Amino acid sequence: MAESIESTTDVLIIGAGPSGLMAAYWMARYGVNARVIDKRGTKIFRGHADGLRSRTLELLDSMGVAQRVLQEGCEMFSMTNWAPDETGELRRQGTTYMELHPPYAIVALNQGRIERFLLDAIKEHSSLEVERGVLAESFEYDEGLENNPQAYPITLKLRTLSEKEASPAPRHGFSDKFLHHLLKADDLKDAVQHRRNKVGTVETLKARYVIGCDGAHSWTRKQLNIPFEGSTTDHIWGVIDIVPITNYPDMRRAGTVANTSGTILIIPREENIVRIYVPLQEEFEVLREFDRSAVTLESIRQRVKKILSPFHFDFRICFWWTVYQVGRRIAQTNAKGRVYLAGDAVHTHSPKIGMGMNMSMQDGFNIGWKVALVAKGLAHPSIIDTYKSERYPLAEMLIDFDRQWSAFFLQQEQQNEGPAQAKLAAMRDILRKTEQFAQGHTSYYCASPLVCKQSKTVAQHLSPGEKLLPVRLRSQANGVPLWTTRLLESDGRFRILLLTGDLRSKQQAGRVWACGERLAGLCKQLISEKEKPESIVDIKAIHSAPYEAVELNMFPSIVHHFDEVEGCDLTKVWCDGACDWGQESDGKGYETWGVNRLRGALIVMRPDQYIGWMGELEDVADLTCYFRGILVESETRSLL
Amino acid sequence: MAESIESTTDVLIIGAGPSGLMAAYWMARYGVNARVIDKRGTKIFRGHADGLRSRTLELLDSMGVAQRVLQEGCEMFSMTNWAPDETGELRRQGTTYMELHPPYAIVALNQGRIERFLLDAIKEHSSLEVERGVLAESFEYDEGLENNPQAYPITLKLRTLSEKEASPAPRHGFSDKFLHHLLKADDLKDAVQHRRNKVGTVETLKARYVIGCDGAHSWTRKQLNIPFEGSTTDHIWGVIDIVPITNYPDMRRAGTVANTSGTILIIPREENIVRIYVPLQEEFEVLREFDRSAVTLESIRQRVKKILSPFHFDFRICFWWTVYQVGRRIAQTNAKGRVYLAGDAVHTHSPKIGMGMNMSMQDGFNIGWKVALVAKGLAHPSIIDTYKSERYPLAEMLIDFDRQWSAFFLQQEQQNEGPAQAKLAAMRDILRKTEQFAQGHTSYYCASPLVCKQSKTVAQHLSPGEKLLPVRLRSQANGVPLWTTRLLESDGRFRILLLTGDLRSKQQAGRVWACGERLAGLCKQLISEKEKPESIVDIKAIHSAPYEAVELNMFPSIVHHFDEVEGCDLTKVWCDGACDWGQESDGKGYETWGVNRLRGALIVMRPDQYIGWMGELEDVADLTCYFRGILVESETRSLL
Repeated sequence: MAESIESTTDVLIIGAGPSGLMAAYWMARYGVNARVIDKRGTKIFRGHADGLRSRTLELLDSMGVAQRVLQEGCEMFSMTNWAPDETGELRRQGTTYMELHPPYAIVALNQGRIERFLLDAIKEHSSLEVERGVLAESFEYDEGLENNPQAYPITLKLRTLSEKEASPAPRHGFSDKFLHHLLKADDLKDAVQHRRNKVGTVETLKARYVIGCDGAHSWTRKQLNIPFEGSTTDHIWGVIDIVPITNYPDMRRAGTVANTSGTILIIPREENIVRIYVPLQEEFEVLREFDRSAVTLESIRQRVKKILSPFHFDFRICFWWTVYQVGRRIAQTNAKGRVYLAGDAVHTHSPKIGMGMNMSMQDGFNIGWKVALVAKGLAHPSIIDTYKSERYPLAEMLIDFDRQWSAFFLQQEQQNEGPAQAKLAAMRDILRKTEQFAQGHTSYYCASPLVCKQSKTVAQHLSPGEKLLPVRLRSQANGVPLWTTRLLESDGRFRILLLTGDLRSKQQAGRVWACGERLAGLCKQLISEKEKPESIVDIKAIHSAPYEAVELNMFPSIVHHFDEVEGCDLTKVWCDGACDWGQESDGKGYETWGVNRLRGALIVMRPDQYIGWMGELEDVADLTCYFRGILVESETRSLL
Repeated sequence: MAESIESTTDVLIIGAGPSGLMAAYWMARYGVNARVIDKRGTKIFRGHADGLRSRTLELLDSMGVAQRVLQEGCEMFSMTNWAPDETGELRRQGTTYMELHPPYAIVALNQGRIERFLLDAIKEHSSLEVERGVLAESFEYDEGLENNPQAYPITLKLRTLSEKEASPAPRHGFSDKFLHHLLKADDLKDAVQHRRNKVGTVETLKARYVIGCDGAHSWTRKQLNIPFEGSTTDHIWGVIDIVPITNYPDMRRAGTVANTSGTILIIPREENIVRIYVPLQEEFEVLREFDRSAVTLESIRQRVKKILSPFHFDFRICFWWTVYQVGRRIAQTNAKGRVYLAGDAVHTHSPKIGMGMNMSMQDGFNIGWKVALVAKGLAHPSIIDTYKSERYPLAEMLIDFDRQWSAFFLQQEQQNEGPAQAKLAAMRDILRKTEQFAQGHTSYYCASPLVCKQSKTVAQHLSPGEKLLPVRLRSQANGVPLWTTRLLESDGRFRILLLTGDLRSKQQAGRVWACGERLAGLCKQLISEKEKPESIVDIKAIHSAPYEAVELNMFPSIVHHFDEVEGCDLTKVWCDGACDWGQESDGKGYETWGVNRLRGALIVMRPDQYIGWMGELEDVADLTCYFRGILVESETRSLL
């Protein structure tokens, strides 16, 4: 007899792919009572997405796992382009170097490893575990409860699947199991299916919030009756993750080979794996004449052979392959009531642009902390509305971007008699125009309680709603330089950056100490005495004087934070000074941000490392208003 | 009833501390039939050693774990020195910057985490597991079998201990268990005691080789009747790993505070932990009057308070503490028959010099690959003799170094009325003189079958028996720069560095291709057709032309190594060219090594990343002799 269980949770995350795990990370950091389910019996080990853009790496750095990505992944900062020359011979036409945004370039690494790192980060901070082989089967939403933050408006039935039900259908001639011996040692424990409940158990779960991260065919989206608009294109592509046997010289360089018979995209990956995207139709072959079900690994091999000819190409090891028809769809919204959609459930497009996983992870990162803060009763429920206003426009831009980029690829193929140099110039042009968006460095987050657009321009190169430009600072406590992407840890707290300017000036020191007093008052208002000091807002000072010219006691006590058990926090004062060792710092952080080196500024970072507010050292009253718009009064909180 | 078992193993490692795990790493990489036992029921989680010198970090990089050390540990590249000024006020007298050897400075991190990384590296490459709670109880050695490499001259009895027997006696007022909740998530599984056999089981184990890494009180050393010579000094020190509550401004900077009442040494560590070494005797108090058993955490606290006064000092959290009487002892030898000693079993000294764990790890690293190669039947048993000739003189130097350094500390204390600047100058002088040895950058390995001292000086700044000076090279396959410490992986193979010089010169290209032919012939001799190609020797090419100026097909086929399944190995050609992205490379590797940029050279690295042989591209016959002196003929090997 199958068991039945009834339970409640504050937050349910459906789907444990990259977007679901990013959201789950916040549940772990905030200690939210949360559940994470996935219908698959195991995590992914190979294939699927594989490109991490530099902004995503910055976020992973703030979560403490970027160095694992770098250690295993394949860095990419240029694209080589091959095409036939005037005589018809295939030649390297040139190399396009991407505009770089230190500290990170693009890194290619399979999604399975990225999930590993996210799972480990979650484990480091909580006992939250992904429940695999669990299927959400029914959904009810009680609108009457929607405005009561304490209520559980969502009721779901979850069924524990058998191992067979929870395993994806094996692809013809391709067994997932034969590659298990190639798993990394730390993935092995996840290759075995575990169940929390007995197979067949049906659990009735009531949730306060649900985040649907369940992919392009999202079950959650369907329950909400949210249309998924768009269409599939006429183009069928194959993707293979292989170990190449070839004399094509640029097999470890990312790039395109545009031959008369089609254009392939090559993405070198971890170890000796290479991913190749290849169009499967012959020239002018239209879709209705193309039999997708007839595609085999063999037919993909033959297409790549033809395009790379006269170079030799073959493979014996294939880790993963798939066939897809380029679809471009967007959900009509990413939020309905207290249910939110993230990742592929909101937007699908061509995988070739290397953005899907990045947008998805950033979706999960954006919704996660907001839901967590509200579920913990710390923030006003209205802040969750910013998920839609911040992420939905980006989903639309993503679809536009994919349209442009795919049109370019198509045009290239149709004009394959044209001069290669002109094509290359056209591609570079697109790359340049879309770079900031594609890499995730510009986010366009609009005005909201979380983003104060009326901020003073105390930092000419920074804007509320955008990221902090990464710089390397030195710890004043010990002189070791560190990138701000690592220093500003995504630990769940808002962060006030007190840019003190140059404390050698007595007048400036006076401003800074006065600001310190005001910030102390602000913290007293924000955090009640029953709560752990600094639990919601962390303050870091960044000064502009030389490292040797100041001492820690020149800074107001608010940035030392004395604790009876742990003493002073010595990680709070940083120097924008030059250091030529290790991760060298150039001492130009203030210049990068456009901040006056004498006068400094106040900058507030949201928990997700986006700028929320900026002002002068005197503007703490305005800053207080900013926080009042977000956080529940501390007296009210203690009633929860 | 206790069970009894009989079994055999090729290699037994006794003791799973840093030296034992370094040796075990090689067993994992070579796939040796080996066992590792430790009498303690769990690994270490806190306290004990904590300083990693830069050479040790280079070796950890070649094992793939250096980035984990950097992520968690505390980097150190200077020492601040405090002493009373003329008016008697405690002041910072100055900062001594260490001579830096990129890529690594010193990193402070507790031994428990370093063991974690080594255990993970072992697991990544094998199923070898440390058997904990196992005590070696009896030892027999059959000299008659010593010269038969296939025989098992050593017989031991191993007893499986109960949890109580395998737990160290709890220190008064200090429970190991209360700190378990502070363990890192990945250490948790090791906090529970596991046993392979039932408690009380006695196993009679026959071994071909034994490596005793069982510490200062080494059981193995006692079985061999090897005297442990030296003495304890009159000095009693306390060590505490604490979270400081203090207004002393340099608590996160490594340094000394030499007050009238004594000199403490401060070592900042991971997170907010600080280690402090403090002399416990009052001035002029002689040893016989000092009651060591009366030392408590409280009395240590008071000593530190007094020395740091007038600064405030206290702590509420103590992770670990101990008291030690400085002992300086050396075993009369580190090898007897087919039993070898490594680490503290050979040398003990003052922990303050931050060398113990480093020397121990390097001992284990040195003996491990030699025993493994011989146990696998690949190398002549005589190569193991080099363990003694290479490591024993270093143990002697270590003891000398400790004597000098301790004398300095003592002198400082006795002359505590002298001018602080003079003391500082004296300390800097010692630091400078001993730097190369202390950091492990000079190893003085003598001539042997493994070190050909008659090598031509084709690289003016390199010597056989020493390390390769680290440089950053770019992968010719994709342009990404990498330090040689990471590139030259400690995977168990000898490595021939074919420094091709500048291939744009036709004459040089001719020399390189001719050398490639000769190296192909050498590989054919060294590795039989039944063995995996490249299983014993790996060849990497490093050229000096600009990255864009050459193509992979300009290199002889020996550095592409075509494999029917995996295709060409594209990790074998490297460029000494400049790159200004990420881990920037300066393109000055040839200059760092002192190699002619046109003509190049041949350099052979031993599996442990020390230079074994050097020569011109024409000297492959001489190189063949070098390998013949080490490796068993491939025909003989196949008989094994």
